[in-house]
Amino acid sequence: MESAIPSHLECPRTRQRRVPDDYEPPYPSFVARFNPSVTHVAMAYFGVQYEGAETESARRALSDIGQALAAANAPGHWDRAHYIDEAGYTNVMSIAYWDGPAVFDAWFGAHGASWASGSSRYAGCGTFTEVVRPAVERYETLFSANDRAEGVAVLANGMSDMVQEHAYWGGARDRMPLSQHSDMAPSGAPKVVSEGQYRRVVPHDNLCLIRSGQDWGDTPSEERRMYLEDVEPVLRQGMEFLRDEGLSIGCFANRYMRVLDPRGRDTDKSFGMSWWRSLADLERWAESHPTHVAIFGAAMKYLSALGPAAKLKLYHEVTVATEEEQFFEYFNCHARTGMLRVG
Amino acid sequence: MESAIPSHLECPRTRQRRVPDDYEPPYPSFVARFNPSVTHVAMAYFGVQYEGAETESARRALSDIGQALAAANAPGHWDRAHYIDEAGYTNVMSIAYWDGPAVFDAWFGAHGASWASGSSRYAGCGTFTEVVRPAVERYETLFSANDRAEGVAVLANGMSDMVQEHAYWGGARDRMPLSQHSDMAPSGAPKVVSEGQYRRVVPHDNLCLIRSGQDWGDTPSEERRMYLEDVEPVLRQGMEFLRDEGLSIGCFANRYMRVLDPRGRDTDKSFGMSWWRSLADLERWAESHPTHVAIFGAAMKYLSALGPAAKLKLYHEVTVATEEEQFFEYFNCHARTGMLRVG
Repeated sequence: MESAIPSHLECPRTRQRRVPDDYEPPYPSFVARFNPSVTHVAMAYFGVQYEGAETESARRALSDIGQALAAANAPGHWDRAHYIDEAGYTNVMSIAYWDGPAVFDAWFGAHGASWASGSSRYAGCGTFTEVVRPAVERYETLFSANDRAEGVAVLANGMSDMVQEHAYWGGARDRMPLSQHSDMAPSGAPKVVSEGQYRRVVPHDNLCLIRSGQDWGDTPSEERRMYLEDVEPVLRQGMEFLRDEGLSIGCFANRYMRVLDPRGRDTDKSFGMSWWRSLADLERWAESHPTHVAIFGAAMKYLSALGPAAKLKLYHEVTVATEEEQFFEYFNCHARTGMLRVG
Repeated sequence: MESAIPSHLECPRTRQRRVPDDYEPPYPSFVARFNPSVTHVAMAYFGVQYEGAETESARRALSDIGQALAAANAPGHWDRAHYIDEAGYTNVMSIAYWDGPAVFDAWFGAHGASWASGSSRYAGCGTFTEVVRPAVERYETLFSANDRAEGVAVLANGMSDMVQEHAYWGGARDRMPLSQHSDMAPSGAPKVVSEGQYRRVVPHDNLCLIRSGQDWGDTPSEERRMYLEDVEPVLRQGMEFLRDEGLSIGCFANRYMRVLDPRGRDTDKSFGMSWWRSLADLERWAESHPTHVAIFGAAMKYLSALGPAAKLKLYHEVTVATEEEQFFEYFNCHARTGMLRVG
């Protein structure tokens, strides 16, 4: 067992972990281990939004961003997911990860900067860009199994051994290297600036992003039934609460998305991704809101029933970003798209 | 809203609370406020143990301790509760609270010291004494309503206004003044020393005691049905888990008890009281063990359904005691009685 904080990011503490040194988690979990030379990563969400059937513009937009993500200075990993939002619009997002800020900057200058700037090629569609570029002290990952990376972890050297800081509330904070000396409290509030159909968000400090996913592709039939009938509906309810009523508890936006395969078909993977005022707000929802207590209870019942035989894979990545590490822009998107809700 | 830590017990922090300064709990809770002149309290559990129907000896023992608790240097408050343990023995406990150590010492010298010393008056019964005498920095209380004190809180000046440090995991720790600068980690391990039928426990540092109760006396019929049918069975399951399997997770002993009225009849009040290796072990069970997650989920569903109209009253008191603040002795009790389980 080892600490989730890699040794090269250990520093003198002014703040304590929530668990004693002899704490032993009741089941194993793993974190992604990055090369110590990595100092920052970029996580970029490129969205296409349209109402009704997929249009020629939308197809073109998706094809363009797919080609761009294979061009020079390409991300180390990207995937695509979709969902229909509460306004009835389809949102297809291409989510890309880089582990070098210079490479990301070069790529973004060539391809990303024009994405949500109102190209006539995407007439009739909305496009949006949501990016965080956190220092490695400012994100953490967690995996229930060490044999399948997702998200930013695909860029890592590999997985850790079993880590100590998990299976208790506050584990995400304790896994984040910055928590050794910062409370990561938010300051200020995000603001939306509109220029016609173009809108951008002026960010606040210590915004929090979570991508939290599940992969039921390996589950045999009975386990699959349990996941889809006993767990997924409870998860969906919680995701819908965050989507529709999240603002009241510090959740700016939540999307419950299905991952697509390269040919655009649904896979057996889904994730929630949400923007929060702060890590503390996310912690409070997770540990005490009835909707997440229900999710946790359903997941615990499921995992207790199956024990180590469970084939469901779970993972998440949580980031706390400075103002400078955030970038949001939206073109021709409806007013409840992503961070525009804060306006 | 105010801090659960009274201003006269505030001190420079080397450790942080788990919640940010702008945290607002989603519902009100209250803590007992003691006179600043109180520096220590005593919480003393005097047990009578017997198998089968109540014997003449048991009646005598209960009458004796009742009279003693009304004698000079009497406790500020006491009550009585009972349960049948897993070995089939009835245990009736008289639980008394003092807010002055000198008064307690005087009373204990006159009455308490002989309780579990093998008096022939109680032949055929077991008797036991379990005492903690914590400094005020070393316990905390919590009440869902501010109009009915229980336990040590009956000795208080009154209740606080709504406090900030509750409704999140780790709240008990944050309410305890000692948490401002101590992790309250346990050291050593308790040992049982036997001399024939007499046994005592050599304690370890930072043992934890919780008494956590519920009072459904004021609930109207539909709420009562919900409590008794939807919540209580789940609570009972968790209490039985701790009783039977608690040792594996740091719970030395758990008793799920029904409060008795002065004439020895069951009231509409119950509580769990348990001895833990450490506050951290109690925290881990509460926040992540399936049995308590189920209790929490059932209680949350109940309280969400009823909202502020709920008439169920909840309270607890949690103590972390030094070695010197503990005292355990047992006479003629079976080997799984209370702290004897550690032997």
